[in-house]
Amino acid sequence: MQKATLIIQCPDQKGIVAVVSDFLYKHHGNILEIDQHVDQELGLFFMRACWELDSFGLDKSAIQEVFEQEIGLRFKMDFQLYFNDRKPRMAIFVSKLSHCLFDILSRYYAGQFEVEIPLIISNHRDLKRVVEAFRIPFHYIPMDKANKSAIEDKQIALLEENHVDFIVLARYMQILSGDFIKKYPNRIINIHHSFLPAFVGAKPYHAAYQRGVKIIGATAHYVTEELDAGPIIEQDVSRVRHHNTVADLVQMGQDIEKVVLSKAIKYHLEHKVHAIGNKTVIFY
Amino acid sequence: MQKATLIIQCPDQKGIVAVVSDFLYKHHGNILEIDQHVDQELGLFFMRACWELDSFGLDKSAIQEVFEQEIGLRFKMDFQLYFNDRKPRMAIFVSKLSHCLFDILSRYYAGQFEVEIPLIISNHRDLKRVVEAFRIPFHYIPMDKANKSAIEDKQIALLEENHVDFIVLARYMQILSGDFIKKYPNRIINIHHSFLPAFVGAKPYHAAYQRGVKIIGATAHYVTEELDAGPIIEQDVSRVRHHNTVADLVQMGQDIEKVVLSKAIKYHLEHKVHAIGNKTVIFY
Amino acid sequence: MQKATLIIQCPDQKGIVAVVSDFLYKHHGNILEIDQHVDQELGLFFMRACWELDSFGLDKSAIQEVFEQEIGLRFKMDFQLYFNDRKPRMAIFVSKLSHCLFDILSRYYAGQFEVEIPLIISNHRDLKRVVEAFRIPFHYIPMDKANKSAIEDKQIALLEENHVDFIVLARYMQILSGDFIKKYPNRIINIHHSFLPAFVGAKPYHAAYQRGVKIIGATAHYVTEELDAGPIIEQDVSRVRHHNTVADLVQMGQDIEKVVLSKAIKYHLEHKVHAIGNKTVIFY
Amino acid sequence: MQKATLIIQCPDQKGIVAVVSDFLYKHHGNILEIDQHVDQELGLFFMRACWELDSFGLDKSAIQEVFEQEIGLRFKMDFQLYFNDRKPRMAIFVSKLSHCLFDILSRYYAGQFEVEIPLIISNHRDLKRVVEAFRIPFHYIPMDKANKSAIEDKQIALLEENHVDFIVLARYMQILSGDFIKKYPNRIINIHHSFLPAFVGAKPYHAAYQRGVKIIGATAHYVTEELDAGPIIEQDVSRVRHHNTVADLVQMGQDIEKVVLSKAIKYHLEHKVHAIGNKTVIFY
Repeated sequence: MQKATLIIQCPDQKGIVAVVSDFLYKHHGNILEIDQHVDQELGLFFMRACWELDSFGLDKSAIQEVFEQEIGLRFKMDFQLYFNDRKPRMAIFVSKLSHCLFDILSRYYAGQFEVEIPLIISNHRDLKRVVEAFRIPFHYIPMDKANKSAIEDKQIALLEENHVDFIVLARYMQILSGDFIKKYPNRIINIHHSFLPAFVGAKPYHAAYQRGVKIIGATAHYVTEELDAGPIIEQDVSRVRHHNTVADLVQMGQDIEKVVLSKAIKYHLEHKVHAIGNKTVIFY
Repeated sequence: MQKATLIIQCPDQKGIVAVVSDFLYKHHGNILEIDQHVDQELGLFFMRACWELDSFGLDKSAIQEVFEQEIGLRFKMDFQLYFNDRKPRMAIFVSKLSHCLFDILSRYYAGQFEVEIPLIISNHRDLKRVVEAFRIPFHYIPMDKANKSAIEDKQIALLEENHVDFIVLARYMQILSGDFIKKYPNRIINIHHSFLPAFVGAKPYHAAYQRGVKIIGATAHYVTEELDAGPIIEQDVSRVRHHNTVADLVQMGQDIEKVVLSKAIKYHLEHKVHAIGNKTVIFY
Repeated sequence: MQKATLIIQCPDQKGIVAVVSDFLYKHHGNILEIDQHVDQELGLFFMRACWELDSFGLDKSAIQEVFEQEIGLRFKMDFQLYFNDRKPRMAIFVSKLSHCLFDILSRYYAGQFEVEIPLIISNHRDLKRVVEAFRIPFHYIPMDKANKSAIEDKQIALLEENHVDFIVLARYMQILSGDFIKKYPNRIINIHHSFLPAFVGAKPYHAAYQRGVKIIGATAHYVTEELDAGPIIEQDVSRVRHHNTVADLVQMGQDIEKVVLSKAIKYHLEHKVHAIGNKTVIFY
Repeated sequence: MQKATLIIQCPDQKGIVAVVSDFLYKHHGNILEIDQHVDQELGLFFMRACWELDSFGLDKSAIQEVFEQEIGLRFKMDFQLYFNDRKPRMAIFVSKLSHCLFDILSRYYAGQFEVEIPLIISNHRDLKRVVEAFRIPFHYIPMDKANKSAIEDKQIALLEENHVDFIVLARYMQILSGDFIKKYPNRIINIHHSFLPAFVGAKPYHAAYQRGVKIIGATAHYVTEELDAGPIIEQDVSRVRHHNTVADLVQMGQDIEKVVLSKAIKYHLEHKVHAIGNKTVIFY
């Protein structure tokens, strides 16, 4: 089934739902999903609508222009239109830890993600064989701290050649430069192995162990220049006990990390995430 | 703030969202919440809309008629209109077990429930003193199995005198007759102490213990004539271990029961539950 | 059934389990529960054993002395012995918020807690009527910031008169002085309305809302002089969504707070909590 | 570190903990983990003890005999002794669905499982390439309903050649014969895609959808001749909503299935599961 998805953000005012749903109705759109949210503090309106294209009265190529003229300009809308015949293109950055990567590959194989994965980039060779069994190109780019900027240029060139829409850091263990991050605003998803904002920074399981918490967690968020402070997309937790060692926490945490990261990827792929400041609206 | 809530159920067709939201818009309604759902199997459309009344262009008393003429008849809608200045009136039936009742009273006291509780009916005197400390009338009606129908007549008379909208069975431990149930379709909420449909009937914690399950649960549902088979409103679960006795399960289960029942009451009070057959649509 | 519970803490060495279980065996003790834990970092051994007294070969009054001579001194044990015919005596401090208090009273009424509650102290009169329906003395002691020390003296006098073993701060909203806290080391249980160590201090739900977390939590801990930094006894969490307001978070959080606090009380009552530094060993 | 694990099951009587821990103590065993449980209904005692071998006073090859003579015979114990230098050998049976298999492979790769996987058997060729990237032999044995017994003979021959200790049915979708099952009592782990005992049999997600439950689940259990009735090892659940289709339930369920199955495998590998009748004692 051919589908269109419309994502809207604009200053809140009365009547937006009526006008947008009337637009879809009068062009014979069969609505599949429709969600809206008003951020009262910021006075912002958010909407996501998804409808069948086959019976739609406007030509696919005309929708953007017609919607803008009829509605977008009037309501000062920031809007994007997506069609499901063009799958988003995702790059994965990975280091040696395999659990998040394998979870993503497992879902990709099973058809859970509507995505193209044109490349996986790693600073280690370890995961090459398995990645290639999934028929995805694997690029080994060793880290060179002295020359990080050249490494990033090489990475960015690869991303651009492959028309990558967004990047997933699947326990990549390297910090991206501000210049890199600016190229992909709200389009780099990281998994942090703590229940943010607790235990920001390195070795969060050690910190959780020292503090004696009874629950550990993981957080998927968009990467911003401030470390571990970007908009949170998804979190989950797991109960721990006094006899669990740091090594246990690391292992239990991996189960949370992989599920949380994969959920965040799915929301992003389905255009269900709106980031505003350091928060997100998620229509699931 | 004065608010109106409109609940709609009708055969699905294109344009309903557009027409309803346009109705609210043209009468200057400020939408607070709006949700819709299509049951594809049954071809049914469900909607809940909630808006501010103060600035609304139609007089409160005229809305029902105008909406029916302009939209309801055209789309063959089954719809209800509620105003928040009239709180729903809830009766509670209880036996000796106190945990669900006290949880409800605790939320009532704290203002979590927009509800009137004109009476509590019990077949035991035990809970009278605490109930009355909350300034709610307590009616002691002892059970008389030989004369159950007369008992129910007495209960129904009390409910009618008190203009009760719906009934909560807070671990009441008695089975209502079909005649009683028919008077309150989808308006009697029961808490069953198992994760339905597992362990239907009496002594579910014993059954769960015998089966060796690792998780127990509780289920809030509307009462229908078939025992424990009515539409499920809410469920939750708790992990158990091999060393837990039946007595432990009972106690752990009480924590689930009270939270599940109180959530179901809240959804019902806010007109967020649509029952269809033995399922529910819940807009939370 | 008469029961004894023995709580042991000592430097770790081989054979402690053998020696203690042999002690119980040779005096014909029927073990009901036995748990042990070694903190490898600190080199500390913890144990909790619970057995039937009726058939036990030592007189109840002799156990302490005999155990000390035979085992305690040899292993440099810090140990306590409890008998279930003497219920712990708990005081509750409360302010205006009722949800935690009512949850405790509900469990007390239902017999879930093996406890005496000789008094409840509040700086407001609001909860007096309900407390008294449970037949518990209610002491209204208004706060007087200018004269806090005199207020605390009055509170402590009441606690001592009533032979209180431990204190529960059921959303008390006042900070106790260091002098007060020192009198009850690891015997004051507080509920903090965040998932510590995130959102220490005042207004944690506001902070959670601002940060855009997807999960909120609550933490029961022993009170130490450093605010919100004492040993954590229990935590739990709840999922929130973008449309939840701060008021929603407060209400959802109350459901977590009351369950977490009541669980912590239960562990404490059953002598299942060992605090060491800012961590706890909990044998549940 | 060389470790021994002792698993005991015997009629309950006083002193077993004392005698066993004394045995370990007098031979200078450094206890790493020790757990016990009494099933009061059945009058059965269960114990698991794990200790360091390096400093142990008995020769590894002598422990079995010495323990039997000194303790086992006296207490009529059914006991097993395991050493961690011999990893259990696990076979996996799989069909086309990949999520459980990939989760197992992912943990195997990451070193979470102390296991050998000498072979994977499938009635389809689909998963061969990925399995072989993990360097595990893949045996394609197509199903032939007319000749099921010959197929099973072939499978059993392979299992025996490979000295397989236990079998995991990772969504295998075929029912094993009673004869096959009898060869591996409590040594075949299956994942059932419902929260047993709800929705026994085929198509549980369809049944859950039709019943309108608010929570779905998955169950790992040992296979017995009665379908879906064997002892439950692990269960977990996930919340669903009215807008979730059967296809959504299937996908959400896969996340639960894989985690539940992998946990059950881990408990089994660590000799933490005692099956008794249709229940399990699990020392985690």
